Amino acid sequence: MNVDIKEAVKQMEEQIIAWRRDFHRYPEAAWTEFRTADRVVKVLNSFGYDVQYGSKVVEEAAMMGVPTQDVLENSSKRAIEEGADSTVVESMAGGKTGVVGTLYTGRPGPIVALRFDMDANDVQEKTDEKHRPWQEGFASLHTGVMHACGHDGHTAVGLGVAKILQEQKANLCGTVKLIFQPAEEGVRGAKAMVEAGVVDDVDYLFGMHLGFLAGSSERFICGTDGFLATTKFDAHFSGVPAHAGAAPHEGRNALLAAAQAAISLHGIPRHAAGVSRINVGVLEAGSGRNVIADKAVLKLETRGETSAINCFMQEEALRIIHGAAAIQGVTVTIREMGGASGGQSDTAIAKRLRQAAEASGLFAVIEDRGSLGASEDFTCFLERVQERGGQGGYAMVGINRAAGHHDGAFDFDEAALSNAVTVLTLAVSDLLQKTR
Amino acid sequence: MNVDIKEAVKQMEEQIIAWRRDFHRYPEAAWTEFRTADRVVKVLNSFGYDVQYGSKVVEEAAMMGVPTQDVLENSSKRAIEEGADSTVVESMAGGKTGVVGTLYTGRPGPIVALRFDMDANDVQEKTDEKHRPWQEGFASLHTGVMHACGHDGHTAVGLGVAKILQEQKANLCGTVKLIFQPAEEGVRGAKAMVEAGVVDDVDYLFGMHLGFLAGSSERFICGTDGFLATTKFDAHFSGVPAHAGAAPHEGRNALLAAAQAAISLHGIPRHAAGVSRINVGVLEAGSGRNVIADKAVLKLETRGETSAINCFMQEEALRIIHGAAAIQGVTVTIREMGGASGGQSDTAIAKRLRQAAEASGLFAVIEDRGSLGASEDFTCFLERVQERGGQGGYAMVGINRAAGHHDGAFDFDEAALSNAVTVLTLAVSDLLQKTR
Amino acid sequence: MNVDIKEAVKQMEEQIIAWRRDFHRYPEAAWTEFRTADRVVKVLNSFGYDVQYGSKVVEEAAMMGVPTQDVLENSSKRAIEEGADSTVVESMAGGKTGVVGTLYTGRPGPIVALRFDMDANDVQEKTDEKHRPWQEGFASLHTGVMHACGHDGHTAVGLGVAKILQEQKANLCGTVKLIFQPAEEGVRGAKAMVEAGVVDDVDYLFGMHLGFLAGSSERFICGTDGFLATTKFDAHFSGVPAHAGAAPHEGRNALLAAAQAAISLHGIPRHAAGVSRINVGVLEAGSGRNVIADKAVLKLETRGETSAINCFMQEEALRIIHGAAAIQGVTVTIREMGGASGGQSDTAIAKRLRQAAEASGLFAVIEDRGSLGASEDFTCFLERVQERGGQGGYAMVGINRAAGHHDGAFDFDEAALSNAVTVLTLAVSDLLQKTR
Amino acid sequence: MNVDIKEAVKQMEEQIIAWRRDFHRYPEAAWTEFRTADRVVKVLNSFGYDVQYGSKVVEEAAMMGVPTQDVLENSSKRAIEEGADSTVVESMAGGKTGVVGTLYTGRPGPIVALRFDMDANDVQEKTDEKHRPWQEGFASLHTGVMHACGHDGHTAVGLGVAKILQEQKANLCGTVKLIFQPAEEGVRGAKAMVEAGVVDDVDYLFGMHLGFLAGSSERFICGTDGFLATTKFDAHFSGVPAHAGAAPHEGRNALLAAAQAAISLHGIPRHAAGVSRINVGVLEAGSGRNVIADKAVLKLETRGETSAINCFMQEEALRIIHGAAAIQGVTVTIREMGGASGGQSDTAIAKRLRQAAEASGLFAVIEDRGSLGASEDFTCFLERVQERGGQGGYAMVGINRAAGHHDGAFDFDEAALSNAVTVLTLAVSDLLQKTR
Repeated sequence: MNVDIKEAVKQMEEQIIAWRRDFHRYPEAAWTEFRTADRVVKVLNSFGYDVQYGSKVVEEAAMMGVPTQDVLENSSKRAIEEGADSTVVESMAGGKTGVVGTLYTGRPGPIVALRFDMDANDVQEKTDEKHRPWQEGFASLHTGVMHACGHDGHTAVGLGVAKILQEQKANLCGTVKLIFQPAEEGVRGAKAMVEAGVVDDVDYLFGMHLGFLAGSSERFICGTDGFLATTKFDAHFSGVPAHAGAAPHEGRNALLAAAQAAISLHGIPRHAAGVSRINVGVLEAGSGRNVIADKAVLKLETRGETSAINCFMQEEALRIIHGAAAIQGVTVTIREMGGASGGQSDTAIAKRLRQAAEASGLFAVIEDRGSLGASEDFTCFLERVQERGGQGGYAMVGINRAAGHHDGAFDFDEAALSNAVTVLTLAVSDLLQKTR
Repeated sequence: MNVDIKEAVKQMEEQIIAWRRDFHRYPEAAWTEFRTADRVVKVLNSFGYDVQYGSKVVEEAAMMGVPTQDVLENSSKRAIEEGADSTVVESMAGGKTGVVGTLYTGRPGPIVALRFDMDANDVQEKTDEKHRPWQEGFASLHTGVMHACGHDGHTAVGLGVAKILQEQKANLCGTVKLIFQPAEEGVRGAKAMVEAGVVDDVDYLFGMHLGFLAGSSERFICGTDGFLATTKFDAHFSGVPAHAGAAPHEGRNALLAAAQAAISLHGIPRHAAGVSRINVGVLEAGSGRNVIADKAVLKLETRGETSAINCFMQEEALRIIHGAAAIQGVTVTIREMGGASGGQSDTAIAKRLRQAAEASGLFAVIEDRGSLGASEDFTCFLERVQERGGQGGYAMVGINRAAGHHDGAFDFDEAALSNAVTVLTLAVSDLLQKTR
Repeated sequence: MNVDIKEAVKQMEEQIIAWRRDFHRYPEAAWTEFRTADRVVKVLNSFGYDVQYGSKVVEEAAMMGVPTQDVLENSSKRAIEEGADSTVVESMAGGKTGVVGTLYTGRPGPIVALRFDMDANDVQEKTDEKHRPWQEGFASLHTGVMHACGHDGHTAVGLGVAKILQEQKANLCGTVKLIFQPAEEGVRGAKAMVEAGVVDDVDYLFGMHLGFLAGSSERFICGTDGFLATTKFDAHFSGVPAHAGAAPHEGRNALLAAAQAAISLHGIPRHAAGVSRINVGVLEAGSGRNVIADKAVLKLETRGETSAINCFMQEEALRIIHGAAAIQGVTVTIREMGGASGGQSDTAIAKRLRQAAEASGLFAVIEDRGSLGASEDFTCFLERVQERGGQGGYAMVGINRAAGHHDGAFDFDEAALSNAVTVLTLAVSDLLQKTR
Repeated sequence: MNVDIKEAVKQMEEQIIAWRRDFHRYPEAAWTEFRTADRVVKVLNSFGYDVQYGSKVVEEAAMMGVPTQDVLENSSKRAIEEGADSTVVESMAGGKTGVVGTLYTGRPGPIVALRFDMDANDVQEKTDEKHRPWQEGFASLHTGVMHACGHDGHTAVGLGVAKILQEQKANLCGTVKLIFQPAEEGVRGAKAMVEAGVVDDVDYLFGMHLGFLAGSSERFICGTDGFLATTKFDAHFSGVPAHAGAAPHEGRNALLAAAQAAISLHGIPRHAAGVSRINVGVLEAGSGRNVIADKAVLKLETRGETSAINCFMQEEALRIIHGAAAIQGVTVTIREMGGASGGQSDTAIAKRLRQAAEASGLFAVIEDRGSLGASEDFTCFLERVQERGGQGGYAMVGINRAAGHHDGAFDFDEAALSNAVTVLTLAVSDLLQKTR
């Protein structure tokens, strides 16, 4: 079967690259992946998958960091103008752009899920002869938005996997679920799909990223660890304005509250049990030089080597923010804008990925483990699966990069796409072999 | 002569109101008063005044808080489209929109100056049937800019005074200087005209404001005191960005520097010698939640009952800002954005204004003194005149207001315009009476 | 009568100086004036005054900033060893060392009160040949305690006034109350006597101080104004200790709470209605370098030109302290340690004092008004008297000083003592003249 | 030979315990170990060691955190009164209480050093029937000082090792150096001995501690790691006092500088390369409630998993302290009060200790590695030895404890003393076996 799979992937490589370039040309930021999701729905339907999207797979109450209504509406309209089906887009109203495609083999067996993320970055793509997407005509058509983190590739890989597994259906037992997630940037989207229950029945979970620790196309990392649990939130302070010359004592100073909060937040003690992080990345306060500032906002994030440590950081942060507001006698509203758990890939899954990588013959360097030191909301799915007795793992597929992730000059050698499809398909088909 | 003057003003009242409404319709914010200044030039020329503008009366090096080149260019173009003379506008390039008109009587005598300010506010005018400028068709045609502080009236009063004094020329000795100043809002413009030397030879200086402490058209305040000396400045902090998760120790945090500066600035000790003020009205820092912020800006102001106290506040502020930058290892650049001296009206001038107000028979309530408790850069002219042995004073001419100053619904009873012209002309002509 | 009074004072001058030197030799700090008060009791009794002390004239619940039980007991013992009557001292247990002596003339008339303060300073007296008390053998016998503010003189003056008025009793109507107050330093003692009701029936109130604004023996200031209302309090923070290396996250940092409170307190906005002050004078926190500090104390004070402004400052301060505690998750206890009202001397009383000063012929310079710019809890008595329809005033009697108040080298020309007795007695006897 | 050694130790066990109890009865805090060092000198001399002390083995310029001259003098006097030789004590003037005893075998071979620390803690020993030292009459005779960290035992173990190795001299080659260090508490003493060159010629270095990670007498830890590099320092701020009511603007506020420094210090960013720590454990500022505080002191420490990380922390700390002083316009002086390197025990030494521990037959549980997570200035010796090509290691010898280290109820099962002597002697004699 392995030989068949490798050959089948090779034959569809051109299609996979075409998908990736299409997504690259029409990048959509978090929660606005209307056109991308519509494409995914169409392709999965064409392969005979059972396809669900909108509120069936995205729990509205658990969506974090959703853009304003204006942005959502403009994005929907644009998607429709760019070819999306208006009925599908309507079903995704409010940003519920998640898609789940399920392949039932008709035979008893485990449920295997693969998760792919679809959203683009708020980055302006480079316009430069040396930048291949621009030179070859598939650079972003959307000003200020770009696939600079490879999620265009992830989505294309997901569709490739869908195709190959559908072709192999006769040889497989059990069930395959392909999860296409919105809003991974800012770790905002996974929670809403988890809360909708999409992995509650999953036995084995796979995730993957192009590049990152695997910085050349010869490398494959089987099991990623060191995911930092994280919480993103905004604090909006509201005070009372007053004339700074004539009546300073009548003001309630939101600027000072935010400033004091920022400073105290950076003073949260180190946690002896492991890595912790805090950052106030943005502070905006006040309207005029001669007015006691009555409005201020902080944008911040906490992280921890474990969810427990992040939880400690978050609790400290909330207490500090409320204390700083109290000092100035202002009110404060806190909005959770994103979050991910900590997590570790299961060794058993990492081993399966090593076997598949070795079987593929595509990688010169195969490493068991890599420590990310950053956050990915794949961990929300992983945590749920592990809590319910399943296993999961996260691989990194090597790419040759033109520039670093999130850089306007980011691009990668597209051979990695079929490599990823091959390894993932091998791993899944091994798990779901009919004869087993 | 007094009877003549009162009669002459009455006859030109319609013209004065027309001027005011023209200025109101085309409001121009600080340093962009190209059309307004062009009008003033034309009218003064038509009255036979010796008129100077641009770099002859505005010292470029002393201009504070000047808008960007873009804003200046767009405003110039707009002024020309709205009828300004392109040669005049070109002479005012860079925002040098001050105008000085001089009337030489040809007879020896003192030099008397009157100062009027021309700039509008960054305020959106109300559109409402109850708002007279809107109802009567002279509301602002410039989005987001409005004469909400009465400077349209001040400019019109200045032109009215020009006309009457020119008519009275045969009865007068000495010299009259009419100073039309840009950029009083933010106390930015006076210094540049003072540094150009426009009041270096002045013996008597008059300034005035419609309204403020004189909140009804029956009132006249002869001598304003309690001007707070003030300095406005911006502090731009520049650090080093870093990924908040992966390398927090590599950053240099401009946000925290600005926050610490803001808090310490508000802790500058009270000065035992009199009123002091400090306000950080705006703090903007950082670009992304997960990046150590490398940029931050503070917009602040200090004030003092005397220039010495404001000087203390300013020195403290500068030291604090540099210290806060040092704490975080970031650099900081400070730009002076405006400033005014403290000041007191001379009693002798206040007495002259009282006599003129009494002679006019226009006011039911005439008060010797009023304490402003705010800042006005008229004091820069006043300080210079007083330093060189001259005298000066600042009157407030009562108005019935539709709403407070700087409010989008601000408007006033235009009878105040001719009242102001009358009193000022009476005071000046008394000082310069030929027979003396 | 005036001539008699002046002569009578002259004859007792030596006695007054002897009293002052006795008090100087045995100085007693706030709330420990056991020996001093015992002396006052004895002398007033010997003059036939009705004398009350202890809980009858000091309301325990309103005593502020009382020393520890240890200090009180040691001071009581010392007083007895130094000659105080043990029964009297027992009646003053807990620091209730206030004394009120009343002279009933037996004739109807107004009630006039004079208030004198008795406590010494926590200052070490200089030992130096040039320092007269040391040279002439009446320097402090109590280490670290000294009469460096002239209250030894005030008490002696009070006894002198007692004697003269008693001699004049036949010529007087109404009632005289002599109030000897403990704990003026730190403005701690007046409130407790006011709450005990000692001035509730008073028509006219006099207070006085040697020196301060009257810096030479030729000067007399009739009416002191500009008393700043003030509140003194301590904030005790309590957190959780932890090892700074092994478990920093387990601590609750009282040191940081106190530091944040201190900084925010100094940032309380200026009050536009008048002078305000804030000072954190002492911060003590932590026990060891490598322990998260679990204890901290702040000693602070607020002031205001009026009681309303001080009230604003105090409310801000309390909110800030609680907010800073909340930031760090620590608890805080606030203890009021002292306080005084703002206040103004009544013009009518100042006029009476001017008449008396003029009649005395003792002063070359007599000024109607002086603005103190500091705090004195005489204002607590004054406020109560004025609230109930009475009048009050506070004089300053000039002295030639050897050094500034509160300096270890402080001393003064003792001629001022009889000057003060003379003026006060003249003013009172004028008010209570029988023939009136 | 091993059997001989074990037997020899058993025979001297009583003496070792007697030494320990003597040291326990006369505890001496850092840099005041005059009596203890004198005892060590006497005993080592009696065993025929070449003994050096004072400035020959302690470099004065590198001594950190030395007590005041008063304390040093009183301690010297007390030591002499308690039996120390006055000539020896004089040689240690200024706190140079380190002692090095050298045993020359007269045969070529490596130089082996063992380091023992001698100082006691600033802890008040418990007086309680359950506390054995009190019950058996060897509790501390020095108020507020106690051997609560087992250094009394370490010194006794050092003398025991001295005796056994001297007995074994005929069987050994090379040289043995026994280093008795003052001032390990606060990590203050090692640097001065290292700078004096005492380990510059050492091939093998051993250190040890009773207890800590080895919390029962059955356990032995061969190689300690996870020493945190640390720096201890004090920052003394000096400003200008002023009256808080009358002239707040004339002050320079040292209290606020210290508070701002403390807060900013706790905000030093986490270092991504490993564990970092910061603590301001003590802040003391100001003298009076109504005085702008002109003096303040901070006592702080930084730590890092590596010396590089601690160096980062220290540099940040210094910059912050100077910046905070600049904010308030005060001066600051920083004094280094202690410090230790990071470090790792060499595996080869840990193996030798394991062999010795196994050969001793005394321990049920022998662990190769333990991670301390705290600081010990043994690392200063270790770093020097490793830099020059030698090897070193640090063992933990199990004890049954009555209470935790640094607790007033601390005590331990004295059987551990001979256990420690046995293992160390076995390890050294193995290294220096003549026949090799």
